[in-house]
Amino acid sequence: MQVFYNDRHPLHHGRHEMFRGELVPCFEVPERADFVLQALRARAIGDIVAAPGIGIDVLARVHARRYLEFLSTAWDEWVALDPRNAGRDALPSYWPIRTFRSDVLPASFPARMGLFSFDAGSPLTAGTWEAARWGGACAAAAAGQLLAGARSAFALTRPPGHHAGHDFFGGYCFINNAAVAAQCLRDGGMRKVAVLDIDYHHGNGTQAIFYERADVFFASVHGDPLTEYPYYLGHADERGAGAGLDCNLNLPLPKGTGFADWRKAMDFALRRISAYGAEALVVSLGLDTFEGDPISGFRLASADYLRVGEDLAAAGLPTAFVFEGGYAVADLGLHTVNVLEGFLQRA
Amino acid sequence: MQVFYNDRHPLHHGRHEMFRGELVPCFEVPERADFVLQALRARAIGDIVAAPGIGIDVLARVHARRYLEFLSTAWDEWVALDPRNAGRDALPSYWPIRTFRSDVLPASFPARMGLFSFDAGSPLTAGTWEAARWGGACAAAAAGQLLAGARSAFALTRPPGHHAGHDFFGGYCFINNAAVAAQCLRDGGMRKVAVLDIDYHHGNGTQAIFYERADVFFASVHGDPLTEYPYYLGHADERGAGAGLDCNLNLPLPKGTGFADWRKAMDFALRRISAYGAEALVVSLGLDTFEGDPISGFRLASADYLRVGEDLAAAGLPTAFVFEGGYAVADLGLHTVNVLEGFLQRA
Repeated sequence: MQVFYNDRHPLHHGRHEMFRGELVPCFEVPERADFVLQALRARAIGDIVAAPGIGIDVLARVHARRYLEFLSTAWDEWVALDPRNAGRDALPSYWPIRTFRSDVLPASFPARMGLFSFDAGSPLTAGTWEAARWGGACAAAAAGQLLAGARSAFALTRPPGHHAGHDFFGGYCFINNAAVAAQCLRDGGMRKVAVLDIDYHHGNGTQAIFYERADVFFASVHGDPLTEYPYYLGHADERGAGAGLDCNLNLPLPKGTGFADWRKAMDFALRRISAYGAEALVVSLGLDTFEGDPISGFRLASADYLRVGEDLAAAGLPTAFVFEGGYAVADLGLHTVNVLEGFLQRA
Repeated sequence: MQVFYNDRHPLHHGRHEMFRGELVPCFEVPERADFVLQALRARAIGDIVAAPGIGIDVLARVHARRYLEFLSTAWDEWVALDPRNAGRDALPSYWPIRTFRSDVLPASFPARMGLFSFDAGSPLTAGTWEAARWGGACAAAAAGQLLAGARSAFALTRPPGHHAGHDFFGGYCFINNAAVAAQCLRDGGMRKVAVLDIDYHHGNGTQAIFYERADVFFASVHGDPLTEYPYYLGHADERGAGAGLDCNLNLPLPKGTGFADWRKAMDFALRRISAYGAEALVVSLGLDTFEGDPISGFRLASADYLRVGEDLAAAGLPTAFVFEGGYAVADLGLHTVNVLEGFLQRA
């Protein structure tokens, strides 16, 4: 399996995030990808390569140009506001919720930061844009592998992507890597593509990007948003809209769900994806379903991830894995490798 | 002039607010109202009294019941999350911007805090609900004075109100006192009511509450939202909608505007209010138009506030003043009293 590793990922290194009224150290740290890289090498899984660069046009297939332009200049604008900002991350402070407008682009940089985000937990740092856009390149390269006939590929990158929407960041995500991969598969000739999101948190960004489209099916198994982040999307009654009606499947599960029930939900999602007629699969691979994750609530054990990989392989589709969340940092390597090994053994 | 003073206001006392990526001490402090009270007493302006209590139904005429219920139990829920929370203010961390849902009420308290707010600058404290709802009572009492035939009244309260919407807090505001006053005037028999907002910041909450109504005209003179808070509303092309079309008037002015130009804008607003046929006027009285305000950008001088009061009196309408922003704290008393004195001399 070709592994596209984003060696720029450490350039994104947030210091603090707002968490229940306090600034606390970030959960989404560079060590996350480092542990996975080490485990891949130790178990000799995959051919670890760099992704070729991509133009902004590839990202603009799923993100608004005004958003990409914002990201590309955000850090310089932040530092220009106040030289002291060079030593602190940028975090937004206000957001255009209902009754506010999102159509007018404020001149104020802090206001644009709020316009293009939805939380105060996703610090924008000096290297965020560089890290995030090379993550998009990894996702595009993984899609390219499938288009070239490979059975599977893995985009190993951070920051993660599935919470990032058409024109907003949040949930530690800036560029929606899974959406980039799915769009590249479509643009490369696949007629129908599915994204299966098995991160603990609902992939609100991916859902929203494809919500009115029939050519990309989105399915997600995740913690019930009534109690779990991102809270404001991911309910079972969200079935898609317009041409995309019934091309969106949410399977929220209560906090505390163990592997047996979780596996049934993933199996149901895979059957729906098969019935849909997907020609390729993008897996938003979050490992925060692990029982030891510090900010999540499912109870998957380490060995369960082998079964996850086997089940995904049994779906029989060309499959691009895209690395998402997981905050039990030291265990991330083992769990990622277990998924991939299970997949490769069955594929 | 009867002054309804909210003596519960010090119960709302935030410690920190998010400001450009940092937690900084709050600008909106109890001393603000204290200085005004002292100045009223020193210059013997007004008969300072307490407002009678009001039921939740009065507030529910302009706010959603699910929002009022949230506010009334928020502090207890916050402390129940973690006993240590008793010693720190509640601040939200995520918000349902575009593509997210606001129709489903999350069970998670932090998620509900985000659902019902739009910034991270408005800490919710142990006494916020008590202070805010008694502010609504002061506004209702001021309206009651006009209904009883008085020429003017003043609701001296904090937290301020004009950024608070139908179902959200933000901008230091929780209950929209000006909207409560306007609605009470309508419910008391006035056929047409105008709200004139002369705070430096656009009164987004008041605008949104009345945006589709023809019975309340909203006019605002404020810093251009392209560069000034609240950024996402307050543009000149917002004219109202539906039945309320042309019952909304925004007069954004560039940062740095002095009294001469500011006065012309207020004069224009008053002429539009007169043409509309308002039977009573509610003034959202922010004093952050002062040249010494630390977070605003107009250049009104202390003596200009006498002219402001005279101009408002010249409009000839029964007038309820409602205290809003102003952060040059030690000068707030002088400026408020200048407005009221100018008004009383001309009325």
